[in-house]
Amino acid sequence: MSTEKHGRQVGRGAKVRTAVLAATLAELADHGYAALTIDNIARRAGVHKTTIYRRWKDRESLVVDVLGEQIAVDIPMPDTGSVDTDLRDIARAFVAWVTSPAGQTIFAAIFSDAARIPGIVDARRQLFEEGPRRASSAISRAVQRGELPPDTDAEELIKTLIAPLYFRLAITTEPLDQAAADHAARVALAAARAGALSSTNTNPQ
Amino acid sequence: MSTEKHGRQVGRGAKVRTAVLAATLAELADHGYAALTIDNIARRAGVHKTTIYRRWKDRESLVVDVLGEQIAVDIPMPDTGSVDTDLRDIARAFVAWVTSPAGQTIFAAIFSDAARIPGIVDARRQLFEEGPRRASSAISRAVQRGELPPDTDAEELIKTLIAPLYFRLAITTEPLDQAAADHAARVALAAARAGALSSTNTNPQ
Repeated sequence: MSTEKHGRQVGRGAKVRTAVLAATLAELADHGYAALTIDNIARRAGVHKTTIYRRWKDRESLVVDVLGEQIAVDIPMPDTGSVDTDLRDIARAFVAWVTSPAGQTIFAAIFSDAARIPGIVDARRQLFEEGPRRASSAISRAVQRGELPPDTDAEELIKTLIAPLYFRLAITTEPLDQAAADHAARVALAAARAGALSSTNTNPQ
Repeated sequence: MSTEKHGRQVGRGAKVRTAVLAATLAELADHGYAALTIDNIARRAGVHKTTIYRRWKDRESLVVDVLGEQIAVDIPMPDTGSVDTDLRDIARAFVAWVTSPAGQTIFAAIFSDAARIPGIVDARRQLFEEGPRRASSAISRAVQRGELPPDTDAEELIKTLIAPLYFRLAITTEPLDQAAADHAARVALAAARAGALSSTNTNPQ
């Protein structure tokens, strides 16, 4: 954020940033995006309003940064030696995240009016692109081990894994639990093994 | 809506209803849910405000009814004699609907602030449950023809077909076109043929 050379200042800056973003997330969780104000965030973070305005233009930039933090969270990616358990663990981790208090807050925020802010739309897309990109290493390893066809489209496979879970979350309100995660993993794997997720299929041109 | 016995009155009532719902959809398309007012709907429909208030409590009930109309639209379900082409046609019909002006308006509305209205949440869920329910007859026929395992979970298969298309629509903003529809059909079918969509898998208890 800043290029202060003084160690203590950098440390204090980082602390303020962490406190303000945590307060933003908490305010979102308690009152939703529509009621989000810099006043309330400042009070909750225990900083002065001007401290916030020095770093963020408005509440939109704050929400975009909160989303950015979530994107940056380095979820440990499984490497169990088998694509079945790797995919199952990825699906379970997704379910655990979206059903956690932080995940629920983030989801409520990105599908509220905040979703009209271009920065939020970008952050949301990034959130759902970054995950598959990171998780795709599990697929590359599976291909190397001969568990999946060599031309498997790794990112498409992860999206195939996530899509039905997201569908439950956003639409059908069926239970989003470990059984749903395991089911999604079985479906995505069966499709991949049958060659339906080969890159020639997913990119027909 | 009403139990008037007089034919002409029933006809006029139906006409008013159609005009008001069409005006609601058009207002949603032009200005979004946040700006939706009974005044504007009345002006657009060419009826008096009180005519609307006689039938609908508020704009929320109007939006719920507009959604209900969409749910009631009797999309012809394919019966091509092959599950491959049936599923492909169902996926293409879904894509055509959600990318049509009416579909886009509906989607914008149900994922705006309107989504907080319980009636909208119900209508949205119904919209995504009614489709799979209707489409599932294509799967039953495929099972009878021996194209799919006998214990295939028909509704789950249709949800597996729709989920990645919906994911593109709501999240990744990748193209939502015929190629995407055909790809989704191949993936869902491959999973079903491999037995990953058998009802014992989808309902593990």
